[in-house]
Amino acid sequence: MADRSYAKSIELPPEDVFRNLKNASRFAIDIGGSLAKLAYCSTIHRRTSTVSDEPDKGEEGSQSIYQVSERDAINGRLHFVKFETKYIEHCLNFVHKKLLDSKEFVKDKCIKATGGGAHKYTDLIRDKLGVQVDKEDEISCLIKGCNFLLKNIPDEAYLYQRHASMEYKFQGVDHNIFPYLLINIGSGVSLIKVESEDKFERIGGTSTGGGTFWGLGSLLTKAKTFDELLDLAEKGDHRTVDMLVKDIYGGAYSSIGLPAEVIASSFGKAARSPKDSAKQDFREEDIARSLLLSISNDIGQIAYLHAKIHNLKKIYFGGYFIRGHQLTMHTITFAINFWSKGEIQALFLRHEGYLGAIGAFLKGAEELEEELPWGENFAGSSGLISPKRSFFTSGRNRSSTFDKLELDQLENRLTHCPLLLDHKSYFPDTVDLIQDPDARSYWLDCFAKNVDKTVKAIHSQPQTADSTERAEQFRAAYLQRLKELKENPYAYGSLTVRSLLDTSSHCLEEFKFTDPWSQQKQMENEAALKGLKDRLIYLDGLPLNERQLALACGLLAGNVFDWGASEVAILLETGTFCFAQAEEKLQVRPWLFDDFDKWSERLTTGPAHKCAVIFCDNSGPDIILGVFPFVRELLNNGTKCILCANSRPTINDVTYNELLILVKRVAEISQSVNKALLSGHLQILDSGQGSPCLDLRLINCELVDAIEREKADLIVLEGMGRAVHTNFDATFSCEVLKVAVIKNRWLANRLGGDMFSVMFKYEKSRQISALNNDSGR
Amino acid sequence: MADRSYAKSIELPPEDVFRNLKNASRFAIDIGGSLAKLAYCSTIHRRTSTVSDEPDKGEEGSQSIYQVSERDAINGRLHFVKFETKYIEHCLNFVHKKLLDSKEFVKDKCIKATGGGAHKYTDLIRDKLGVQVDKEDEISCLIKGCNFLLKNIPDEAYLYQRHASMEYKFQGVDHNIFPYLLINIGSGVSLIKVESEDKFERIGGTSTGGGTFWGLGSLLTKAKTFDELLDLAEKGDHRTVDMLVKDIYGGAYSSIGLPAEVIASSFGKAARSPKDSAKQDFREEDIARSLLLSISNDIGQIAYLHAKIHNLKKIYFGGYFIRGHQLTMHTITFAINFWSKGEIQALFLRHEGYLGAIGAFLKGAEELEEELPWGENFAGSSGLISPKRSFFTSGRNRSSTFDKLELDQLENRLTHCPLLLDHKSYFPDTVDLIQDPDARSYWLDCFAKNVDKTVKAIHSQPQTADSTERAEQFRAAYLQRLKELKENPYAYGSLTVRSLLDTSSHCLEEFKFTDPWSQQKQMENEAALKGLKDRLIYLDGLPLNERQLALACGLLAGNVFDWGASEVAILLETGTFCFAQAEEKLQVRPWLFDDFDKWSERLTTGPAHKCAVIFCDNSGPDIILGVFPFVRELLNNGTKCILCANSRPTINDVTYNELLILVKRVAEISQSVNKALLSGHLQILDSGQGSPCLDLRLINCELVDAIEREKADLIVLEGMGRAVHTNFDATFSCEVLKVAVIKNRWLANRLGGDMFSVMFKYEKSRQISALNNDSGR
Repeated sequence: MADRSYAKSIELPPEDVFRNLKNASRFAIDIGGSLAKLAYCSTIHRRTSTVSDEPDKGEEGSQSIYQVSERDAINGRLHFVKFETKYIEHCLNFVHKKLLDSKEFVKDKCIKATGGGAHKYTDLIRDKLGVQVDKEDEISCLIKGCNFLLKNIPDEAYLYQRHASMEYKFQGVDHNIFPYLLINIGSGVSLIKVESEDKFERIGGTSTGGGTFWGLGSLLTKAKTFDELLDLAEKGDHRTVDMLVKDIYGGAYSSIGLPAEVIASSFGKAARSPKDSAKQDFREEDIARSLLLSISNDIGQIAYLHAKIHNLKKIYFGGYFIRGHQLTMHTITFAINFWSKGEIQALFLRHEGYLGAIGAFLKGAEELEEELPWGENFAGSSGLISPKRSFFTSGRNRSSTFDKLELDQLENRLTHCPLLLDHKSYFPDTVDLIQDPDARSYWLDCFAKNVDKTVKAIHSQPQTADSTERAEQFRAAYLQRLKELKENPYAYGSLTVRSLLDTSSHCLEEFKFTDPWSQQKQMENEAALKGLKDRLIYLDGLPLNERQLALACGLLAGNVFDWGASEVAILLETGTFCFAQAEEKLQVRPWLFDDFDKWSERLTTGPAHKCAVIFCDNSGPDIILGVFPFVRELLNNGTKCILCANSRPTINDVTYNELLILVKRVAEISQSVNKALLSGHLQILDSGQGSPCLDLRLINCELVDAIEREKADLIVLEGMGRAVHTNFDATFSCEVLKVAVIKNRWLANRLGGDMFSVMFKYEKSRQISALNNDSGR
Repeated sequence: MADRSYAKSIELPPEDVFRNLKNASRFAIDIGGSLAKLAYCSTIHRRTSTVSDEPDKGEEGSQSIYQVSERDAINGRLHFVKFETKYIEHCLNFVHKKLLDSKEFVKDKCIKATGGGAHKYTDLIRDKLGVQVDKEDEISCLIKGCNFLLKNIPDEAYLYQRHASMEYKFQGVDHNIFPYLLINIGSGVSLIKVESEDKFERIGGTSTGGGTFWGLGSLLTKAKTFDELLDLAEKGDHRTVDMLVKDIYGGAYSSIGLPAEVIASSFGKAARSPKDSAKQDFREEDIARSLLLSISNDIGQIAYLHAKIHNLKKIYFGGYFIRGHQLTMHTITFAINFWSKGEIQALFLRHEGYLGAIGAFLKGAEELEEELPWGENFAGSSGLISPKRSFFTSGRNRSSTFDKLELDQLENRLTHCPLLLDHKSYFPDTVDLIQDPDARSYWLDCFAKNVDKTVKAIHSQPQTADSTERAEQFRAAYLQRLKELKENPYAYGSLTVRSLLDTSSHCLEEFKFTDPWSQQKQMENEAALKGLKDRLIYLDGLPLNERQLALACGLLAGNVFDWGASEVAILLETGTFCFAQAEEKLQVRPWLFDDFDKWSERLTTGPAHKCAVIFCDNSGPDIILGVFPFVRELLNNGTKCILCANSRPTINDVTYNELLILVKRVAEISQSVNKALLSGHLQILDSGQGSPCLDLRLINCELVDAIEREKADLIVLEGMGRAVHTNFDATFSCEVLKVAVIKNRWLANRLGGDMFSVMFKYEKSRQISALNNDSGR
């Protein structure tokens, strides 16, 4: 009750923004002149599906090869929220009240504090929360946070190019980010030259920043919030307030290249004549726009000049000024392009406001030697501001909701796949849905329709009483997100089939549906295992060439068993669709992409591969009747195999934990597999991913170690997600096999084929120099 | 009547600012976004004193060797005035009305127009004034005007150093001004890199300039004029509005060197909280100050960054933003010092607002092949704004008076004396009265007291009926100016005895007292001529050594006859003080500065000098009994002589025109002088100056040519003005004789002597390398 009353009287983020605060264990706070950003690591209880092949003591004589169960797991989650610095005392009271109930919160723990206010509010924080306050240098936190985001959060940075074919050009993820210039626009502006993780320097600053915009805006308009002021600016026409080149020259000042519409003097038209006693009548919208343009232009020019002096080609903008506001970004980008003649890039950050808070938190984590990585949770984070406000502003005050960032702790450290020909230019996704409105429209609709299938799968889980309610919540949340993406495709970085699948997974998990297909997968795995022995005998009876083709077709037939493909799901739901039927569905050779003959020739005439890395796809017939026989043949041929599966469940993809059990059962059936497993010739590894798509920029470091240790010379990408939606165009420094059945009619047609078209692409190893020569011809 | 009414209803400069408009013959106009600057060349009728030795037909048997008469002369004067661009139409009407009566104004003449508005208002100007409008490029005019001021107007540029021992550091005059960066702050800001007269480029600009200050100021305060807004800013405390480093950090942010008082966010404290529905209550003064600091800081930083990129060490500020406002200059200077660590200088211009108008006017003059130089008229120009407003604001609205600049056409082209050891480091004045409060106080009082003597001399002119009235006007104006200089010593550049003497001359001339001592001089010249023959016979009878001493003593005794020295003037007024009495007054050897023995040794043992340049002082005994015998001895010794006198009259200094007559009379008496005159061994030249002091940066080019042609190896500076108040410390690449009698008790005491102390300094020629070696020891 008390909470409610002051949550109303002051501008605190609502309680649903301070999520999981009760469980919060570690804190970091970045206190700026205007805004404070609180980071806290909380634990979330989530349902995880576990598999076990330990004898189930309760059920003697069970036919199952493994048991599936669900349990509550605890996972780390990083929450970031912001509030106005002037309310810090109320806010700390609020936090403290929540924490009183917390079992996790221990009094002797400390809070990392950074930003200007870290010094000023040390005593207040200590007294209010009863914690030790560890002050961390502001600049050093900013840089740590910025480096973290650039290296770990795909598409964190983007170019904004109004009128270009690609308005938002997301930058993927890169581990070679230095050197760069960071312009941190808080109340004031700091310019920091960053040369490495440890080498950075504040080379400049101006006092004309977000505080100036909001301060002058408050004096000049009735806007109640920073965002209201931005809204005003968007509606305004600065030409009524600003003196343009044409107002002075009557047109352009051509001899020095100043176009007529360029602002010659910001607010120049508002100058009062000595005889005008009354205030002139300017529209607030026009004033706000003039103010925004003036400050953005100024920051743009100063940023360019410093970058020029220090020979830096990339300028990132952090702080809390830009907020994804297109007019601001356009103005800054225009200024930097204008002055640098396009030589310097202005890059914006999706999480510009949290650099300091992230950095401070990471410093605390380092001290605790917790170096596990964090991934963006699409379900709990808010996206960039939509240019069409209808969605975001509907029913709520945008500014008072406060945008959120949530990062989930990942189980593995991730890095890029060493087999990529050029990891810097690698981009996982085949189709950019921001650039391709047809594809965007199709896939957004497709995912919206499929939500029913997902809910059906959820209903199939009988364990929990509230699953129907939660399924409805998931459905509503996910459809809402799809609607948001339809209006604002770039809200969460690149929009791709991969990002849509990730978003679906995050939303499912948010409503505690971690693995809706676990029962289905178990059933299919058991059924498939029953057919493996016969399949192997059949294959062994074929002559070499025919066997190679049969193995390829087996991979393809197995790949048909995909609950993610809605047309296939209809077949699968009959419960009678079998491996042989799947083989019949396959396109007759020549396939849509048919490199089988090249592949076969390679196998028969070339030396055996040293080591193959196989990224496998679905449970059931796919992994057991398709992949394992294919792997067994490679092993028999003297090729080591690394079989990788996802860390986290997604649709009916086989998971690493499931694969660990399955391989034991397969080893019981196949002597070769058994021997290979014991000798280490067959390794089962966790890919580090949790999606049907495969982002080779961020795979498990252990897997990377194995790939390098075994000198892998063949990579096999199986399934639509791994070989069509992503990596279709990826080039590798080793041989690659991309195998998939196109189980989506729209996509098949787009590729020039029909439903069940086959992709069997075999590519030789490439070298960067050869590539360059090719392109030079 | 019509004039009056609209002169009241709009903000036009009052009629006394548009001085001499009726006689205006040529026009140039610089139309900026906010202010228009009109330049016009007018003629002023002034009284000149002429001398003639033509037989006076009206008065047979006249005893006078020459006749003095006064007549009206016509002289060119350049006027510059500014008004608000928005009133251009009214202003053109006003000008046109005035010109209708003008005989000078010819319809087919043209007006040079520059600035942005030159394009916009072409038709209006043509229609209103009935003239052809020649548009001139704005940047090119700005640069032409800036170069002109830097090269021609002494102390045009200055450093402003708050808290330094020398708050204003004037830069003298320099002909090597390139390269530099010009920041022209009008409504907007242009940055122009200037490498030579012809090579310049606009390298940048910002829209945050004077228009922004005045525009935002108009929206935020009730100030009625730009200057009222500056006044508000001066009274304000920005710390109530701006967020300082200490407001965020609680103190300094030491690790990155940000002091506690630095502005972190301009207007940061004015940011409205969402719950503050009403406008917060900030003082207008504080807002104005915050605005001024924000814009000045911003311009300072951008100027520094561009200068850094282009490796420019000097930044000049032009436009109409700064207006000598100390807070603005301090802020800009501080910013540039801060960022450049003192490597780049911020230089302000006394006539910052007139660069474009001057440039446009000069372009017109060039076309007419009028290349005569212009000098600042101290009487008709307004000074820098006083920091103590009491004087300037008393009884008038500062902004509506509009400051003025008047330049008088000079008769000679001027350049620096080639005999100076290092003309770049040369500074004429011995004592800087800005830096030396005791000397300032003494001399300001001294000149104020002397005004009575001057008026007395004026009264002695019986020719004109209104002389008493004009004398009173002069007296009031000059005392007012002295009062102004007492409050605001740097208002017109360096304050020195020289500048006080110049100001006195300009004021006298303004009230048509061009040569108040003409009668006195004539009388003394005639009397002295009568004694010359005996003096020469006496000298010729002495043995060499005694003759040299007698010649030196003659120079000194002659120099006693100085109406500018008030204690001497009392003696002279008796009418009976003679040359022999003057000799007796002289200090007994050893003199205060006594290099006579060195000089005598040089004359007897060294080779004869090739050519001596003698800058002579007073009329009467000084020139005739002191200088001519001295010159005659040099001529007899085989040394060519160049005898220089002032172009324009000042006190009782002999003028060039007078000297031309006197030398003929002397030639009648001395055979040597006659021969030398005929053979060209004696040349009489015009120094180009009009002051008892001697500024060797700006002497007649013809004189310079003669010095170079004759390879002058001796320079003689005679009198207190030329050898004590100025050039006391000057070093030369040739031999120099500095000869004067100290006829001011205060000054004599300061120098460690008494009244009538003697300075007879002889210095050998110096070389720059030797000088450097000396200083290195």
